[in-house]
Amino acid sequence: MTHRVYNFGAGPAMLPLPVMEKIRDEFLDYQGMGASVIEISHRSKEFQAIQDEAKALLRELAGIPDDYRILFVHGGARMQFAALPLNLAGRSATRTCLYAETGNFSQLAIKDAKPFADVRVIASGAADGFRRIPALDPAAIDPAAAYLHITSNNTVCGTRWQDFPATGGVPLIADQTSEILSRVIDYRKFGVIYAGLQKNLGPSGMAVVVIREDLLGHAEPHTPLLLNYTQLDKDDSLTNTTNTFAVYVVKCMLEWLKEQGGVTAMEQRNEQKAAVLYRALDNSSFYRGFADPACRSLMNVTFHLPTPELEKRFVQEALAAGLYALEGHRAVGGLRASIYNPMPLAGVEALAQFMAEFERING
Amino acid sequence: MTHRVYNFGAGPAMLPLPVMEKIRDEFLDYQGMGASVIEISHRSKEFQAIQDEAKALLRELAGIPDDYRILFVHGGARMQFAALPLNLAGRSATRTCLYAETGNFSQLAIKDAKPFADVRVIASGAADGFRRIPALDPAAIDPAAAYLHITSNNTVCGTRWQDFPATGGVPLIADQTSEILSRVIDYRKFGVIYAGLQKNLGPSGMAVVVIREDLLGHAEPHTPLLLNYTQLDKDDSLTNTTNTFAVYVVKCMLEWLKEQGGVTAMEQRNEQKAAVLYRALDNSSFYRGFADPACRSLMNVTFHLPTPELEKRFVQEALAAGLYALEGHRAVGGLRASIYNPMPLAGVEALAQFMAEFERING
Repeated sequence: MTHRVYNFGAGPAMLPLPVMEKIRDEFLDYQGMGASVIEISHRSKEFQAIQDEAKALLRELAGIPDDYRILFVHGGARMQFAALPLNLAGRSATRTCLYAETGNFSQLAIKDAKPFADVRVIASGAADGFRRIPALDPAAIDPAAAYLHITSNNTVCGTRWQDFPATGGVPLIADQTSEILSRVIDYRKFGVIYAGLQKNLGPSGMAVVVIREDLLGHAEPHTPLLLNYTQLDKDDSLTNTTNTFAVYVVKCMLEWLKEQGGVTAMEQRNEQKAAVLYRALDNSSFYRGFADPACRSLMNVTFHLPTPELEKRFVQEALAAGLYALEGHRAVGGLRASIYNPMPLAGVEALAQFMAEFERING
Repeated sequence: MTHRVYNFGAGPAMLPLPVMEKIRDEFLDYQGMGASVIEISHRSKEFQAIQDEAKALLRELAGIPDDYRILFVHGGARMQFAALPLNLAGRSATRTCLYAETGNFSQLAIKDAKPFADVRVIASGAADGFRRIPALDPAAIDPAAAYLHITSNNTVCGTRWQDFPATGGVPLIADQTSEILSRVIDYRKFGVIYAGLQKNLGPSGMAVVVIREDLLGHAEPHTPLLLNYTQLDKDDSLTNTTNTFAVYVVKCMLEWLKEQGGVTAMEQRNEQKAAVLYRALDNSSFYRGFADPACRSLMNVTFHLPTPELEKRFVQEALAAGLYALEGHRAVGGLRASIYNPMPLAGVEALAQFMAEFERING
């Protein structure tokens, strides 16, 4: 019997046990080839079939329209923080790119874009300590801007955009790293959706980019080749040797998601899971939720205990009870339970039970 | 008993069976954590220990001096084709970067650098179809250049630099992707050595960069953050979520290399392995080696048969005999046996035996 904890880490995060077992079981010999999936060429027909299947499943499960292209790109979401303005700022004569500042990763997206664009922050939750998604004034959406960038779920603070802003002709771009495939999304509202793999999709080191095809073709001439979406699209993401292991795990994750009933079923389960933990917070005066209830994430549940000492003890005793990686991000402190698609309801219930018991003893 | 072929693929390439088994055996539960190595934070103490150990072993086994920094970077060697001029061209007032053109990947390095530097090709083997490493005129090494770039082993054509040019004060940069840790190298001759992982070091999607520390600090302001060596060095390669699986496999590969006796022992074995195949070519009028004998690679053995039909049959029958991925690169055609560190002598002997038998029947 393999020892497995309930892993609440924010990412790289837990993957479903059946997926992990499948990867392990075929690790030395992929489909009778006598070689591992990590030992075959990215140009082999076997790998091409893996990537084709991953793309087809993603399109089917996420409901991606035909005029959106799917790219697998090196470096995770953070590499896209620079790639986005390099590829898209050229749509605007003034290279104006709009950003909403809603937490740690949106701040990094803003910082990394600045060398390549005229970055304008048109909404910020900084004054609230990012407990809320800020209101977005439609008048601030300059129709001449190249795009408006949002971080649809904020991993560190535990907030999410419940609804998405109407942006007229300005393409809306969402970093969906910590919630892709966890909720039903209408891709038609977006020009680009992108996500690092390491929460709902696979291992770390790579991202998926979904881009409406009319947004291709605007890359600045000084774009490093492997950051150029137009080139990557032309080469079906195989401009160079891709991260074959990551693409393979994505395929396995999408097969699993389909078996689970797809995104609609997963969203219901995620609502149920999050409700268990938010109920535990709301029914207690010992635990204090960090995010404004109207802006709560279904993926990252952030909360505090009365003192830092109790928080430290909570993390340690939870670990001893098989509940792993509950410490909050250093920017917010406190506790954080990341409950992505792979986290089963039983894991969340075990945490809620532990919370009740911990409060009984320490409250 | 696991089915395993002798895998002569050029990359992603075979890894040693004991390494593959170790990865499989601890895939669901890394060191009793109850989580996989791909499911834990890149900022956890357990992952930091993996990366520290990988760096320490690489330094020890490759003989990297203390004043060289080791970076793990996203995207493989190809991403560095742009990163190198972005980081280093600024050393030259005219942004002059020198390149030797010795095959497919050096041509791509030249092409990808051009948006960021005044690229000058000072030696080329193109006229010979890249069968030889061209002579390098010392007078062509402009002392005001930012660097001279070579591809130390040419995967496609099967040539290598037997010795390395003296470059005076101009830093020599080597793409060692297809031969890193296969031969003893004096790092003092180089300013930068870099390599994609997917031949001698691990899975695809990442590269290692070894850079003399005085070469840091020259990045152009428009360098995407994750391509900036100075930033990556400052952050110990953890500016963003790294490819944790790849770094872990590198650690396992380096532990294995150390058990094998290190680079000196491995170089002897590689010479022995290559000699078996080159002897088979030289003793036959049926097989014709592609590379000039004075420039032969120890890693990639390229050859032709009398006709394309025979070459096709050779590949098919070899596959049926458990000898996988022997087709040559489309740029050269013919056959190619890639025999990196993980290829055992027995694999090479099996191929030589197959070659003799194939010649007996078809010659």
